[in-house]
Amino acid sequence: MPREITAYSNPLIKRVRSLREKRHRREEGLFLAEGLRILTEARESGRLPVYLFFARDSAAHPLVRALVADVEAAGGEAIETVPDILSKLSGKDNPQAVVGVFEEFAVDLAALDRSTAKIWLVAERLRDPGNLGTILRTGDAVGAGGLILIGECVDPFSVEAVRASMGALFTVPIVQSGWDDFLAWLRGGPGQLVGLSLDTDQHYREARYAAPTFLLTGNEAQGMPADYAQACDVLVKIPMLGKADSLNAAVATAVMAYEVLARA
Amino acid sequence: MPREITAYSNPLIKRVRSLREKRHRREEGLFLAEGLRILTEARESGRLPVYLFFARDSAAHPLVRALVADVEAAGGEAIETVPDILSKLSGKDNPQAVVGVFEEFAVDLAALDRSTAKIWLVAERLRDPGNLGTILRTGDAVGAGGLILIGECVDPFSVEAVRASMGALFTVPIVQSGWDDFLAWLRGGPGQLVGLSLDTDQHYREARYAAPTFLLTGNEAQGMPADYAQACDVLVKIPMLGKADSLNAAVATAVMAYEVLARA
Repeated sequence: MPREITAYSNPLIKRVRSLREKRHRREEGLFLAEGLRILTEARESGRLPVYLFFARDSAAHPLVRALVADVEAAGGEAIETVPDILSKLSGKDNPQAVVGVFEEFAVDLAALDRSTAKIWLVAERLRDPGNLGTILRTGDAVGAGGLILIGECVDPFSVEAVRASMGALFTVPIVQSGWDDFLAWLRGGPGQLVGLSLDTDQHYREARYAAPTFLLTGNEAQGMPADYAQACDVLVKIPMLGKADSLNAAVATAVMAYEVLARA
Repeated sequence: MPREITAYSNPLIKRVRSLREKRHRREEGLFLAEGLRILTEARESGRLPVYLFFARDSAAHPLVRALVADVEAAGGEAIETVPDILSKLSGKDNPQAVVGVFEEFAVDLAALDRSTAKIWLVAERLRDPGNLGTILRTGDAVGAGGLILIGECVDPFSVEAVRASMGALFTVPIVQSGWDDFLAWLRGGPGQLVGLSLDTDQHYREARYAAPTFLLTGNEAQGMPADYAQACDVLVKIPMLGKADSLNAAVATAVMAYEVLARA
């Protein structure tokens, strides 16, 4: 039976709320995800929260009931609460019906099997959590094998990244790696490294792509370092007809990913 | 000569800061844009702020000097200030070197010349300011004739939308319209209305596009209403290989826009 918490001062509420900060996520190894759609995606991917908070008036919803049952069967705790506390946990005025606390997870580079997908996404020094989440969401859509984060990227378990991923955080494997380790691993097997560049005449719709293709997305403000570009097997450009010289990082990744999906 | 403001309590600082709220933007007909890149884009597009705030230690930067000179020549006011006040104006811990206050502008549907571009972007009930700004940025890149906002969309002059547009707010014409008015205008001349749908077998890479193409993007959570879909000349689908059934709205718009750019 779910217990009930209706007091802000409850220590668990304070603790869960602190997971909005990276420092506390690292200390606890836990992160927050919210909303029935994302939590159901997690459940279907075999990931259940250790704590599940749900609003009393959504307790009868079939997807909430399924979550509560599975969480309790797996040894987690389901907690009935009030909208105000859900607001406090999610940091939104209109809270979602459910908030889950999950254990962080990570995949090792060595555990990736590059033969399982024709597209892999690689991002270096990505700084915006919305971009990271959106890239995961696109990764899910194109059937990417995973997202490899190089260098100092924003935390994929931040509330904003999880939210923007719309659940893809649970379906697309995420690896964190240094550049040298990644490059050594990449060159230990088949794989084409493709990067976007302003300094090439190779149109992205005319380049040849060969699976598995690793699409490298550079930092939002600076793009990728010159030596990363030199390590690419193919550099391509996306035409820019306006005043600006770059696209949003998540948009550029998606345009490239769908091109490769159609032609690799 | 620029005047100097270093006190938070200055009435102009309070007034400018209030423009972070939509209500105050509507009352004043003014909005905020920040950052040297975006303000330079604005200047090159012929739009100058009525107030320009800049940090003392960036006063010598050639682009800041050019902005100050042009703003003063146009009758606006350049104001030297301190980083703390720039932070307060922009709502960011690491403030940009410049913040500008611009007069809002709008374009009438009747003023659009559809023969000037092969792609036009149309969004209905777009709710996320980051998505709106990102769609503008993509619009600039594909040479879109404009962005037509249908129904209750988020304010394109919000701080987040302006920031995500990276200056495209100043280069891509924006029209706000009702659906019926838009449709009447559209059918008064050549133009193909293209929408994304889950209920079609028409692959987006196989459909035929004919310029001018009007790309319709629906609400982030609900997509477009059935009668909007029925009004489309072509409905297409983008393949979704994963668990999710949709892409981020700005991503879907970009994938479609680049497809049309290559083939219309």
